[in-house]
Amino acid sequence: MTQRRFVTLTTDFGTSDHYVGAMKGVVYGINPSALVVDISHDVQSHDLLDGALAIAQAYSYFPLETIHVVVVDPGVGSARRPILARTEKYFFVAPDNGVLSLVFEREKRVSVRHISSDHYFLQPVSQTFHGRDVFAAVAGWLSKGVKPASFGEEISNYARFRSPKPQRLENGRIQGVVLKVDKFGNLVTNITPQDIPQLFSPEPPPFKILVGKHEITSVRAAYAAGAPDEVFGILGSMGFLELSTNRGSAARALEVGKGTEIVVSGKW
Amino acid sequence: MTQRRFVTLTTDFGTSDHYVGAMKGVVYGINPSALVVDISHDVQSHDLLDGALAIAQAYSYFPLETIHVVVVDPGVGSARRPILARTEKYFFVAPDNGVLSLVFEREKRVSVRHISSDHYFLQPVSQTFHGRDVFAAVAGWLSKGVKPASFGEEISNYARFRSPKPQRLENGRIQGVVLKVDKFGNLVTNITPQDIPQLFSPEPPPFKILVGKHEITSVRAAYAAGAPDEVFGILGSMGFLELSTNRGSAARALEVGKGTEIVVSGKW
Amino acid sequence: MTQRRFVTLTTDFGTSDHYVGAMKGVVYGINPSALVVDISHDVQSHDLLDGALAIAQAYSYFPLETIHVVVVDPGVGSARRPILARTEKYFFVAPDNGVLSLVFEREKRVSVRHISSDHYFLQPVSQTFHGRDVFAAVAGWLSKGVKPASFGEEISNYARFRSPKPQRLENGRIQGVVLKVDKFGNLVTNITPQDIPQLFSPEPPPFKILVGKHEITSVRAAYAAGAPDEVFGILGSMGFLELSTNRGSAARALEVGKGTEIVVSGKW
Repeated sequence: MTQRRFVTLTTDFGTSDHYVGAMKGVVYGINPSALVVDISHDVQSHDLLDGALAIAQAYSYFPLETIHVVVVDPGVGSARRPILARTEKYFFVAPDNGVLSLVFEREKRVSVRHISSDHYFLQPVSQTFHGRDVFAAVAGWLSKGVKPASFGEEISNYARFRSPKPQRLENGRIQGVVLKVDKFGNLVTNITPQDIPQLFSPEPPPFKILVGKHEITSVRAAYAAGAPDEVFGILGSMGFLELSTNRGSAARALEVGKGTEIVVSGKW
Repeated sequence: MTQRRFVTLTTDFGTSDHYVGAMKGVVYGINPSALVVDISHDVQSHDLLDGALAIAQAYSYFPLETIHVVVVDPGVGSARRPILARTEKYFFVAPDNGVLSLVFEREKRVSVRHISSDHYFLQPVSQTFHGRDVFAAVAGWLSKGVKPASFGEEISNYARFRSPKPQRLENGRIQGVVLKVDKFGNLVTNITPQDIPQLFSPEPPPFKILVGKHEITSVRAAYAAGAPDEVFGILGSMGFLELSTNRGSAARALEVGKGTEIVVSGKW
Repeated sequence: MTQRRFVTLTTDFGTSDHYVGAMKGVVYGINPSALVVDISHDVQSHDLLDGALAIAQAYSYFPLETIHVVVVDPGVGSARRPILARTEKYFFVAPDNGVLSLVFEREKRVSVRHISSDHYFLQPVSQTFHGRDVFAAVAGWLSKGVKPASFGEEISNYARFRSPKPQRLENGRIQGVVLKVDKFGNLVTNITPQDIPQLFSPEPPPFKILVGKHEITSVRAAYAAGAPDEVFGILGSMGFLELSTNRGSAARALEVGKGTEIVVSGKW
């Protein structure tokens, strides 16, 4: 029984060049039975947190044994290692720069290998495009059945960063940060219902969310429940508090963006 | 015999976030034998007409039994229903907000069901991303062979809007509107050869197309037949009169966009 | 044994309209067993060189017998012919306007046919969207096993342009040009290691690269080796000299773009 093997791609390569096409060609050239699936190629250039968020929010929906290739790689050509990570259900092929940190946060059992068997690479290996010459090639061979151990030794000192966590200030105030602005202009913060359960209760106590010069005092259950021009809080699909507005861009309305600090205060 | 089942995606989710990747993961996670095909994810945010045009112009080319998922969904999380529509050859999974209106215009026999069997949804269902939790999940199960009737009861009061039609004014003048501006800057109007057959005859009578402060007096058979900087009319591939310019953007040349009214006058 | 046939798409159609989705529908409608793979749809509008670069940099990684469809087609609807090119390993379906020139430069044995058997086209053929009505349809039938000779007669007078080559000036100076700016702002020039081997030697002699008002005097082995704000030369993955900056856009730093001339001088 040959089951179709999935290879997903998450990169900051954009789609206006040949980069993504070349990666797909390499995977299929090695394993014409694989199926390559785009997650996103519009990760912010060189932005490890943005790439980490994209893959962390998408990987767990795919079939067992899917190989997730994640290439946000400002250190390409330098001494940073390529790695192959194995979780209970999935494989990840990526540079060793922390871009898998949010996956590592969510997975209990992770084994990480330093990919050193360069006979699996496209030769000669360029110094500027390991997405093609290293990561796509390794994903191709892995999808074809090459054993993880063949790619290199297990390591424990792989890079990982801790995603920014909300801080508790005095008087029950909580300080968070905008992790990203999505396509609709929703401001995705790092605050979860675990941090402030009351905020998402059916009848939340009075509260204020301070963002720049703006004050937000309502939480809505759906975008469409927002009044015209109202910016409100909402529990987003990523599991975080989002600041949003109905059929408009909260980022534009508040004139803030990624990295902006927010402070939530209330009687809890 | 297992035939490959196609699932197409048309959304306003953009490609810079994980949204589309998560939807693909859900479909493949449920049915790894399906094939997911992107139609467009760059529908104008919250724009039902833009989404309706995209799917209406693409659906009919796909293989029999293709499942078309269309998610332009400003009412996500509100009371608007999810629907499953069946035409003679295809399935459509979408919010009940009219985004399938132009499909309904073209299809004689349509059966529409309210998707209410929430055991087919991803649980817990978020209030902001039914593309993942409802529509992709339903498409996955449908592609796997679940019968349409299993998803819910047939309804007749589903939402649909009438696409804007040209108006006949006095003196044989016809008023239309720009439905969309395409990637090249072509202005796609709602005027068809049925509305003004003479305009597209081999030797059209003298005519004027008024757009903003501009007057267009020629129709060309091909973009390349246009003189430098000339804006002309042309019968576009969507079956509508388009205003175009050779190797340039008519939208920029005329400084107009979607929703702009145009008036065609001539001796017919 | 039925092997999966790959059909790649490289176009300037963008992804905000239905164009690409319609093309995929046509291929799959004719051959549901094919696999359509996007290379890029964000080729600069009407830009044959940009399209030629995209396909030339990606095609050779794909499996044997892949059918590459390349549609950058400002002359659609005019007298320009559709062609089917066969190289040792691949097929190409494109307008006869030179967009395959860089493929032809790299391939020794090429046979080109004028596609004239219009019963393989979608009828009626529009005058503005041969990507759907001609090129996707032909790719579909070709992928289904129709013989190349069935599409039309072999021709030798097909269009091709010579990609811009570096010029040798007096005093060992070499003049090149920026072929393209990639997503990261890297300036891809037309200068190769064959043109100036010394530039890419482990210890290059002193040299200057003049670009606009800027002077570049270093070559780096990796992007990450660049000092903050330094613009440097680097051997890019396309085989050309690129001008780059570490985690930033060289195009923005130098305020230049595609078509900009550069002059390299040094003691060689």
